Amino acid sequence: MGLIPRTIHDIDTPAAVVDLDLVRRNIQALQTYLDGTPVHIRPHVKTHKTPQIALMQIAAGAPGVTSAKVGEAEAMVAGGVHDVLIANQVVGPAKISRLCALAQNARITVAVDDARNVQDLSAAAVAAGVTIGVVVEIEVGMKRCGVAAGAPAVTLAQTVAAAPGLDLVGLMGYEGHTVAIEDHAERAAAARGALGRVIETKALCEAAGLNIREVTGGGTNTFDITSKIDGWTELQCGTYATMDAGFRPHSGHMFESAFWILASVISRPATDRVVLDAGRKAVSFEPGGTPIIEDPSGLEIESLSEEHAKVSLTSQNPDLQPGQKVRITPWHGCTTFNLHDTVYVVQDDEVVDVWSIAGRGKFT
Amino acid sequence: MGLIPRTIHDIDTPAAVVDLDLVRRNIQALQTYLDGTPVHIRPHVKTHKTPQIALMQIAAGAPGVTSAKVGEAEAMVAGGVHDVLIANQVVGPAKISRLCALAQNARITVAVDDARNVQDLSAAAVAAGVTIGVVVEIEVGMKRCGVAAGAPAVTLAQTVAAAPGLDLVGLMGYEGHTVAIEDHAERAAAARGALGRVIETKALCEAAGLNIREVTGGGTNTFDITSKIDGWTELQCGTYATMDAGFRPHSGHMFESAFWILASVISRPATDRVVLDAGRKAVSFEPGGTPIIEDPSGLEIESLSEEHAKVSLTSQNPDLQPGQKVRITPWHGCTTFNLHDTVYVVQDDEVVDVWSIAGRGKFT
Repeated sequence: MGLIPRTIHDIDTPAAVVDLDLVRRNIQALQTYLDGTPVHIRPHVKTHKTPQIALMQIAAGAPGVTSAKVGEAEAMVAGGVHDVLIANQVVGPAKISRLCALAQNARITVAVDDARNVQDLSAAAVAAGVTIGVVVEIEVGMKRCGVAAGAPAVTLAQTVAAAPGLDLVGLMGYEGHTVAIEDHAERAAAARGALGRVIETKALCEAAGLNIREVTGGGTNTFDITSKIDGWTELQCGTYATMDAGFRPHSGHMFESAFWILASVISRPATDRVVLDAGRKAVSFEPGGTPIIEDPSGLEIESLSEEHAKVSLTSQNPDLQPGQKVRITPWHGCTTFNLHDTVYVVQDDEVVDVWSIAGRGKFT
Repeated sequence: MGLIPRTIHDIDTPAAVVDLDLVRRNIQALQTYLDGTPVHIRPHVKTHKTPQIALMQIAAGAPGVTSAKVGEAEAMVAGGVHDVLIANQVVGPAKISRLCALAQNARITVAVDDARNVQDLSAAAVAAGVTIGVVVEIEVGMKRCGVAAGAPAVTLAQTVAAAPGLDLVGLMGYEGHTVAIEDHAERAAAARGALGRVIETKALCEAAGLNIREVTGGGTNTFDITSKIDGWTELQCGTYATMDAGFRPHSGHMFESAFWILASVISRPATDRVVLDAGRKAVSFEPGGTPIIEDPSGLEIESLSEEHAKVSLTSQNPDLQPGQKVRITPWHGCTTFNLHDTVYVVQDDEVVDVWSIAGRGKFT
């Protein structure tokens, strides 16, 4: 990498770019929505993986962040975050040892769904002289991780509460199978139905004398639904801060796209075809949707190979030549951030900073 | 990362692993096939992105390697490779300047399909006092980059031959649209039909007095077809060295899978379900095929989310518990290598080295 570019026009491509003012606006929009409610946001950093954005979210009011892996949590703590919920199971001596090391320097909470894992965490926390926060993950319909709601979850919560070195923080459930339901009323019914099991389990835990301080979960597409469930305390939305093309239509236009891949035309081999230098290694390609060319308008990506995007042109489209730049909105922001080591930060097209995407590739 | 693990069983997950003996065997298999023919292999490093594997390929007989981007070429030259063909258009002053810097230290060749790009490359090479090799890319049916075969390609080759600072090396065509045709006879007919245009253009160039030293292209699935085309000189196969689940059935079982993602069970929330710690951030997920669980046998990945693989179990399957490890063969090796910073090198399950995947993310 050479000198830091002065404006967005000087950035070599393909490159990840965020608009600082739009990121701030998105963060403030959700914070304002939640202010005055009993629910707070603990933003998931699996989208942006960038401590600088996490610190903006905390400055706006978040008590800390959510991560998916120990490695992401390490990147956040190294970047100045002091409170991380790892919303996932942490299994095996190598990762549990890193978890305890992190807990020397930050407030660390982890999800559990297995009694033997609870014993492993407890033994390691005691040996390291630390306390690890624990949320019991409840399966609410994704059929992924999570103990069954009701009695099995209460039993596991009791096991956590009795385990030395662990602090029972509360319950977790993620309504991930509902977030892409197009019709908002259907989505709301599905999310409330799923998370109702967590709230019922909370009541059972409290009847058994357990203190459930947090009930945590929720995604960007259900923030307005989950935040209104009686007894819910914490949202884990992540995509809202930078937004992507897949989630944008679902979130009621409250959040704006603030993250792009900048690409260049590298070939104009025929009148009806142009080729860009950004392929699947620069912008993620997943079943479900295609990345969108935002600027110039009127162009659609026809196919993406590893290093190329192919755009078919008609006489209606802007005429593009090698060297010209385009701005692509990723369909899925989380997996696209994960491809880049750095992101250029722009304000009114001026490059004001370059951030390391410190959580990229931290999947252990 | 802590201490280097002693055996494959000590590696924390998810992690990329290559089997050194199998990689060597794959490299030797293609080299032996080509020995005594007029065709050599210039392996594409976009699959493994690892200088150590590139140097093994060169030691076996390759004159150099192929890369997709300047950044990949820089990673290879820094790793000790002295001859790189960038099989792609290099556009814009920033990248052309890096290309010239590379050419101070290595033999660098680049593909062109545009006369203005030829002038830009020539001017920069003259200013830097270097010579850059050039192959004229011919469109052979992928409808991606490349000038039309016949007269337009001859004209562009003449422009290259006349341009100071540039050395016309030859012609390039990639039969990428044929490599996944299941029936071998159909694939052969399609590949020969496509590449015939390059051979015809070679004859036209030679009739015009141009010296065409190399005719380059070819993928792992067509090595036995393209290498037999009269006048072809160079193959660019990449996947063969480590192989993947997508290409393995096509290549006549001449090459073995030598690259896996090691994953662990992190949750066994129900009798019929197990969850692994490797999702789309650790093993690429593309339309076309699903990664395959190689060990233990009898398991299939039902779905992949960002950080999780979900496996449905029946009583016929091995019984898995949290902490147990599985070995996953990626469907697409190139995009999976691209997710990892390092790869563990094993021989008979012993970890003998850890290599940096130096070309990962080098897409500028």
